[in-house]
Amino acid sequence: MNIRDSKTTNEAAIRNLIDRRADALRARDVDGVVSCRTADYAEYSLAPPLSHVSDPGSLAAWFATWRGPIGTEVRDLTIVVSGDSAYSFGLSHMTGTKISGEEVDLWFRETLGFRKVGGNWKIAHEHSSVPFYMDGSFRAAVDLKP
Amino acid sequence: MNIRDSKTTNEAAIRNLIDRRADALRARDVDGVVSCRTADYAEYSLAPPLSHVSDPGSLAAWFATWRGPIGTEVRDLTIVVSGDSAYSFGLSHMTGTKISGEEVDLWFRETLGFRKVGGNWKIAHEHSSVPFYMDGSFRAAVDLKP
Repeated sequence: MNIRDSKTTNEAAIRNLIDRRADALRARDVDGVVSCRTADYAEYSLAPPLSHVSDPGSLAAWFATWRGPIGTEVRDLTIVVSGDSAYSFGLSHMTGTKISGEEVDLWFRETLGFRKVGGNWKIAHEHSSVPFYMDGSFRAAVDLKP
Repeated sequence: MNIRDSKTTNEAAIRNLIDRRADALRARDVDGVVSCRTADYAEYSLAPPLSHVSDPGSLAAWFATWRGPIGTEVRDLTIVVSGDSAYSFGLSHMTGTKISGEEVDLWFRETLGFRKVGGNWKIAHEHSSVPFYMDGSFRAAVDLKP
């Protein structure tokens, strides 16, 4: 297999991993989401604090705040892969209904860092965010569309 | 050179690139910052909109809003490199004084994506953010410390 083929194969595997994680999120399947991550997974999430480690307990607690499936759609996805590491970035759309009745319809930025572990691609780092308004209000920009 | 040596050399070169960018920011040197980026550089910045491309004009305009040097310090930096791509993530501390007199002292998360172009490492993607409070206020969490 030449380098070009290998890049294409790895890109397809990473795209598949991102799809599997979206399916697990939709189904609120804690084990499914955690199986996509490395053991040393480090997350910069939408919520404080600045940095998180993988914690199935908090993931389950967060899933329990949703009434039904959590929808995710990714747009403008770029994947850069070489050897046994890769990163991707794109715009994500999260949709669904919380237990409180709140309708979620949020576009945010998502950058992922990957490592190949024992022949399988895993997510080692996740950075999800919205920007904030520079008008002195410090409001998170949760109303932006791509 | 074996793979281990090559990884060490590449990591050192990427660390050096991050330092050079910090020096250019400190000096508010537009060309210095832009020279660290690929031509197709894509940024998810602290400020709206969701996504930006490299724009020396807006960088110069932003630099002009500062009274003196822009300080940056990086903590807990992780670099993952393989072949001709890499990513890094860590917590950044931005300090300085704006023209308005406002004192900036902000910790944020920064994830970088790199590509080796013509033998030189460049920043192809930058994602900078703070999380936001999930208490219904949608306030950006600009007061967090690592």
